[in-house]
Amino acid sequence: MSEECLFCGIVAGTVPASLILQTDEVVGFLDVRPLFKGHTLLVPRQHVVTLPDLPKEQLAPLFSATQRVADAITEGLDAQGTFVAMNNVVSQSVAHLHVHVVPRTKGDGLRGFFWPRTKYADGEAESYASRLRAALAT
Amino acid sequence: MSEECLFCGIVAGTVPASLILQTDEVVGFLDVRPLFKGHTLLVPRQHVVTLPDLPKEQLAPLFSATQRVADAITEGLDAQGTFVAMNNVVSQSVAHLHVHVVPRTKGDGLRGFFWPRTKYADGEAESYASRLRAALAT
Repeated sequence: MSEECLFCGIVAGTVPASLILQTDEVVGFLDVRPLFKGHTLLVPRQHVVTLPDLPKEQLAPLFSATQRVADAITEGLDAQGTFVAMNNVVSQSVAHLHVHVVPRTKGDGLRGFFWPRTKYADGEAESYASRLRAALAT
Repeated sequence: MSEECLFCGIVAGTVPASLILQTDEVVGFLDVRPLFKGHTLLVPRQHVVTLPDLPKEQLAPLFSATQRVADAITEGLDAQGTFVAMNNVVSQSVAHLHVHVVPRTKGDGLRGFFWPRTKYADGEAESYASRLRAALAT
């Protein structure tokens, strides 16, 4: 636990939040400034900053909670789908790993992060793929 | 496997892709129209449509591969961070679960999905939280 961390405060119960779900490993609560109402954040109780920092044995607990909340959003809030996202370091407003689960409905005006896209020049994709494969091999 | 599914074709090797990673459960390859170059997609070999559809035993394999690719992107492509996201149904361009892992750098121009945000009226957050808790309890 980090003394200064807002989300550790919510996990500990010392910071108020609209709680959705509590398991042995994970706490879920409403984002106070939702993209769409019902926008939920899921955090591991353990203070880690980014997804790569999460111990492997906590992956299934975190993402099975994410599955449950995604289903609850479509079933309980009549959403047609969900957007599930994490920011690691850049655009990460609180330095405690949090999974956003956002209700989506067709025509809701969220273009998401899908525009604009770019293109690879000839051979450039293979160069990027090669660099990533090399980094994965280390 | 779905005969008509583009990503099942990539998994099977019948559709070309810039492959990054192959495990027993997961295949990773470059998005052909990247948000930023190096933008990778990770798919389970098994054809499922959304994150909630993924069998529980495949959560750790999929997201440990995601951790590895996120590290490879920051280390191999000198990115400062990553954006990890899934669209379930709405804005989902291919109906085979895929995890986007996107390189991020401060000032890269991606405002992401974080604006505009909305607000809850008095008592409204508790109403949404209550509906989600009820859906989770069923």
